[in-house]
Amino acid sequence: MAKPVKTPRPRAETPKGFRDYFGSDVTERAEMLRRIAGVYHRYGFDALESSAVETVEALGKFLPDVDRPNEGVFAWQDEDEKWLALRYDLTAPLARVYAQHRNDLPTPYRRYAMGPVWRNEKPGPGRFRQFYQCDADTVGTSSMAADAEICAMLADALEEVGIARGDYVVRVNNRKVLNGVLEATGVSDPDQQAAVLRTIDKFDKVGEAGVRELLGKGRLDASGAYIDGVGLSDQQAVPVLAFLTSRGADPVETLGNLRTAVGTSETGRAGVDELEEIASLLEAQGYGPDRIVIDPSVVRGLGYYTGPVFEAELTFEILDEKGRPRQFGSVAGGGRYDDLVARFTGQQVPAVGVSIGVDRLLAALREKGRMGGEAQGPVVVTVMDRTRMAEYQAMVGELRRAGIRAEVYLGNPKNFGNQMKYADRRGSPVAIIAGEDEFARRVVQVKDLILGARIAESATLEEWKDRPSQTEAPREALVDTVRNILSEHV
Amino acid sequence: MAKPVKTPRPRAETPKGFRDYFGSDVTERAEMLRRIAGVYHRYGFDALESSAVETVEALGKFLPDVDRPNEGVFAWQDEDEKWLALRYDLTAPLARVYAQHRNDLPTPYRRYAMGPVWRNEKPGPGRFRQFYQCDADTVGTSSMAADAEICAMLADALEEVGIARGDYVVRVNNRKVLNGVLEATGVSDPDQQAAVLRTIDKFDKVGEAGVRELLGKGRLDASGAYIDGVGLSDQQAVPVLAFLTSRGADPVETLGNLRTAVGTSETGRAGVDELEEIASLLEAQGYGPDRIVIDPSVVRGLGYYTGPVFEAELTFEILDEKGRPRQFGSVAGGGRYDDLVARFTGQQVPAVGVSIGVDRLLAALREKGRMGGEAQGPVVVTVMDRTRMAEYQAMVGELRRAGIRAEVYLGNPKNFGNQMKYADRRGSPVAIIAGEDEFARRVVQVKDLILGARIAESATLEEWKDRPSQTEAPREALVDTVRNILSEHV
Repeated sequence: MAKPVKTPRPRAETPKGFRDYFGSDVTERAEMLRRIAGVYHRYGFDALESSAVETVEALGKFLPDVDRPNEGVFAWQDEDEKWLALRYDLTAPLARVYAQHRNDLPTPYRRYAMGPVWRNEKPGPGRFRQFYQCDADTVGTSSMAADAEICAMLADALEEVGIARGDYVVRVNNRKVLNGVLEATGVSDPDQQAAVLRTIDKFDKVGEAGVRELLGKGRLDASGAYIDGVGLSDQQAVPVLAFLTSRGADPVETLGNLRTAVGTSETGRAGVDELEEIASLLEAQGYGPDRIVIDPSVVRGLGYYTGPVFEAELTFEILDEKGRPRQFGSVAGGGRYDDLVARFTGQQVPAVGVSIGVDRLLAALREKGRMGGEAQGPVVVTVMDRTRMAEYQAMVGELRRAGIRAEVYLGNPKNFGNQMKYADRRGSPVAIIAGEDEFARRVVQVKDLILGARIAESATLEEWKDRPSQTEAPREALVDTVRNILSEHV
Repeated sequence: MAKPVKTPRPRAETPKGFRDYFGSDVTERAEMLRRIAGVYHRYGFDALESSAVETVEALGKFLPDVDRPNEGVFAWQDEDEKWLALRYDLTAPLARVYAQHRNDLPTPYRRYAMGPVWRNEKPGPGRFRQFYQCDADTVGTSSMAADAEICAMLADALEEVGIARGDYVVRVNNRKVLNGVLEATGVSDPDQQAAVLRTIDKFDKVGEAGVRELLGKGRLDASGAYIDGVGLSDQQAVPVLAFLTSRGADPVETLGNLRTAVGTSETGRAGVDELEEIASLLEAQGYGPDRIVIDPSVVRGLGYYTGPVFEAELTFEILDEKGRPRQFGSVAGGGRYDDLVARFTGQQVPAVGVSIGVDRLLAALREKGRMGGEAQGPVVVTVMDRTRMAEYQAMVGELRRAGIRAEVYLGNPKNFGNQMKYADRRGSPVAIIAGEDEFARRVVQVKDLILGARIAESATLEEWKDRPSQTEAPREALVDTVRNILSEHV
């Protein structure tokens, strides 16, 4: 099957923006998702796995009005000329699935989905073109109980994977309140409204005074450049600033401040009512402000959602690239979006959902030491005598039956040093050594590699010679001896 | 965000040949793969998840020498003109990964991979263009201990997911033995050799006599058509028939028969030696013929592999579409292939691996009742009084904290019949009912829906009126009452 020599060799590399995941990067993510799925299941959410490939028509955002629809998605033409594409998120497929199967699905339909999505974007450091999403949505109800439930479920999920209470907070805001605030400003020009929204988005960065300037005449930024303002009067800016600074000591105070901010706007009042309902439902279930808070400063995503909006933030500090402490930040977000399937059926179907940033949450768990970030290596049974392979295999068989990860060295056994290098590369905690002499005396040498490495770092020559990291054990005590060493290193 | 009315509505459907998986179809597959991964992990195999997208160049089989390489893969051109494609299996990506990372990976490298693959083929009944594979491979060793290990691991994995010993067998054959048989026939013309191979593939269907005829002059098939033979003399056909019928009462007898069949062929003898080594390694570890057998009738895949070949077959009977009993058949296959990365590096790297047919194995587990095939529905707390939503939420909160799957009905609560229909569609085992009267008396009605359905099928009117399927419980006994009912239905 050898190729003719003249064929140039292909390059062994992933396409730009794609990557491979090895060992614990795969298994720890799987374990984290399994725990989250357990919480979702308990809340009555059903698993859904839609195909990775959708028709571009069903995905909707990207119509083939140009030669090829490569705006943001990976797309190609099927044999029947239809354009197909890899899904770019898990919400567009949910809309398609719900429209397709709505007569067979319960209403409301609670579903969760976990899996890779693909974006045809310019890759950058830490930005990949394939990544995981983990979503839960409730389709077909406008009850605020659905929104409250998703906030509670998100808090439970974070605790289930190992984020302690106090290390996270779920913040809740409402798009309708913001719309009410816009009404209260008296701004009706869509461009000026959009400018106000963009300014609100800068609240985190520039603070109250900065927003005040940007809503008015403008402001000098840090670099000395003058940023033009939106041109509101001081009077017009009042509701916006009241909105952004309305967070009070408790939900009652916050909601009171928001009522003031939205003034007589009906939409705004409806939004405050919704927040009030969510707050009272959560309070009745014991989800206090140590877990979930009404927080009008949540502005990210407000443009996308139509009602309540929420965001889960990790509040503990980590060190950034430059060694400065900063909060870990957002790991999940969601909200209510009421036009999910109208594209397909013409009917408005209310829905609310949340999406967990899988990679970020996993990084957070590692930061907190809740996930090792290192594979547990196998016990390596070395090969001193090729003709004894069956006996080495019997050893690993015994270890595995005792639940201990173990393998025989299967490379060329001639150079023993290579076998120990292999064990090192595998992160092995223990190596087993048995040659002619050991077989004759029915014993094995059991080498504690973790202790060995520790001694190698600090030992004197005398200590080194004592080799306390290596024990001789009767052959029949192999499993017990290994188990004892492993239990010392847990 | 409403679209203009003139836009025609998109069709809500998966692309041809793709499908969605709901509820237990997702969770049971995940659970099965998790158990298999546990076995692989114990054997020292590391997880690998490569990206779904590869360069067509790295996939290798499908070069862009035509306008677009749509032969069997889904492919498209990236912005930099490179052709990208969805992986069609997990072996081609392994080759790329090993070639790319070989300096950082241990040698030998044991890895497992699980995930979807995509084939651009004509879909048919039960044939989809996206499906799961689950592979384990050892790269970088030619030791037969690696092959034996994979056979043992496959047997362990089948038992771990719920296939009982005796309900499966792993059969092992060797491509080199077949090559030796070809040498022994004296056939050297490649076309004639290929014809002999095709005839061997028909052994399952036409039996020994049929193969004898097809190797010689030819034979009348069932439809009355005459099939031309390969044209071997009786003498030339002897080794082939000896090979196909060489399975003896034990490995020693089988291996003896194979030695006779290959005669003086060196390749053939090497193949028999390899089988002998595998058999003796497996025997030493206690994997007898109740689990793994040397079986020269395994001919599927012999063309692809270069050494040992194995296949796991489920031996219990199921009824086919026409109600006739037949053996369940193959659920996994693999073997040794020694030119994995030579395309990339020019160096031959020996490798051996196995692939489990995920969908078939899951179907087998359902057939044996090892997997429910039905989701466990949640307890549904119905809503009799909208203003009590917080109290209904508190009920599901208590149930969930007790580990019981539970949800509040979040549809329009006006029509109680709809709530019970919803509970039915959800497969709920229990419904909770509490209205004004129940809240006043601090009780709940607990309805056993499984018992209720059973009674509805067979009850007299009197029994029906007694409503033994509905109990009144003190509010504080909610969790205990539900738990008791659930434990009765396990």
